[in-house]
Amino acid sequence: MLPFKIKKISLIGSGNVATNLALSFAEKGFIIHQVYSRNIKNAKALGRKINAPFTDIISEIDKAANLYIISIADNAASDIVSQLDAGNSLVVHTSGSLDINKLNKFPNHGVFYPLQTFSKNKPVALNDIPILIEANTDKNTEILKQFAAFFTSKVHVMSSEQRRDTHLAAVFANNFTNHMYNIAERILKRSDISFDLLIPLINETARKVNDEIPCHVQTGPAVRIDKEIINKHLIMLADLPDYKKIYKQMTNSINKESKLIKI
Amino acid sequence: MLPFKIKKISLIGSGNVATNLALSFAEKGFIIHQVYSRNIKNAKALGRKINAPFTDIISEIDKAANLYIISIADNAASDIVSQLDAGNSLVVHTSGSLDINKLNKFPNHGVFYPLQTFSKNKPVALNDIPILIEANTDKNTEILKQFAAFFTSKVHVMSSEQRRDTHLAAVFANNFTNHMYNIAERILKRSDISFDLLIPLINETARKVNDEIPCHVQTGPAVRIDKEIINKHLIMLADLPDYKKIYKQMTNSINKESKLIKI
Repeated sequence: MLPFKIKKISLIGSGNVATNLALSFAEKGFIIHQVYSRNIKNAKALGRKINAPFTDIISEIDKAANLYIISIADNAASDIVSQLDAGNSLVVHTSGSLDINKLNKFPNHGVFYPLQTFSKNKPVALNDIPILIEANTDKNTEILKQFAAFFTSKVHVMSSEQRRDTHLAAVFANNFTNHMYNIAERILKRSDISFDLLIPLINETARKVNDEIPCHVQTGPAVRIDKEIINKHLIMLADLPDYKKIYKQMTNSINKESKLIKI
Repeated sequence: MLPFKIKKISLIGSGNVATNLALSFAEKGFIIHQVYSRNIKNAKALGRKINAPFTDIISEIDKAANLYIISIADNAASDIVSQLDAGNSLVVHTSGSLDINKLNKFPNHGVFYPLQTFSKNKPVALNDIPILIEANTDKNTEILKQFAAFFTSKVHVMSSEQRRDTHLAAVFANNFTNHMYNIAERILKRSDISFDLLIPLINETARKVNDEIPCHVQTGPAVRIDKEIINKHLIMLADLPDYKKIYKQMTNSINKESKLIKI
């Protein structure tokens, strides 16, 4: 049963999030009414994928959809919001860091934030992914909760502040973690060692925190305060000054926290 | 078929690595001849797990084993090496950062480094885990290769220098990554949000680099140079100065590299 009101969805945006959402919506039988992107190539690429009309002209987005999903970079949102006429329909954005108030112009508005890292070329199913919901009225909250529940069992109602904290945490857990992988890859490269060698370690590192909180499974020279190895590593990083700084900073931080835990 | 010579194994150490190795060795039918730890409780705990004699007196380790595995902290190695009498048997250490030369005293010596993060309480099978091998002679290299092949298909012969680079890379990919998870957990805690919420994201972040090199899947405000979000995040971290420094450092580093890639 579709949540009352939501049948036709228009998508504003054609990036990683918009593409993944559009595919999931279409798969569950929702009608993608229109797709907008300021880049016509991207609008076309997404429109064709889900068999929906597309445009790069915001005024061509009509009022016939029940739900408008704004899924674009935060700094482009104000511009789109000011130009979009969605009548009385529900308008949501998908950003972790944007306040719900940005959509105050629309009588019915909210947030639909899927907490995941998406790629256009490798779509991820939404099931099992947390979707964080916020809306301007209890009724809209209920509509969004029911809608999100089509895709995942992990629907959470959260304030803008909580969502902002979650997004910041996600930057550490995803963006910065990926950069740690990247640094590891570069260090291996200079010794002609394949990055593949680290995959079992990377997988196990993630798997461990599925069961235990991270501070309980911290290992390595920093938490052991093994100065001999730490000094060796700093010497090895002499020609990679940025990584050396990161090494020092991380080591100090791990070290400090392990002391706090012991006290 | 057991590699010729290796039947009885004595273990020097009782930590995470020693415990995981001992369990894998015993499971494959090797005899654990003796277990040593400077801490008798730990020696006993491991000895009982694998039904082997144990001691906390290094001179009680006899010469009857074919293989001695030294699996202790790097800074305790010199002391143990000077006291251990292993006759002509093969002696290896399991350290990523310790040079093979540390074992020069023994006529037959080498390195057996399993590239994984181990816990005592949750043993991990060695299959699929890379084991990095080095030895003082071709014959010993061959023995260690055959021995390692009992446990995993991923046996690699590496120099001490390459192993050291691999270990340094592993510190970034495991220790520092886990600390990123830890920081995320602490940020969530102050908003009373469960760390579980991030698990799908953490798993997907690791999964992505199983297929692609990290710099190709970097996402987030740092790589997009989204100053508005970055500044918001820095303000949100005002009361967590260490994390704020790490945020800045990581953002600058991601930013710099993304420019290098584009050029």
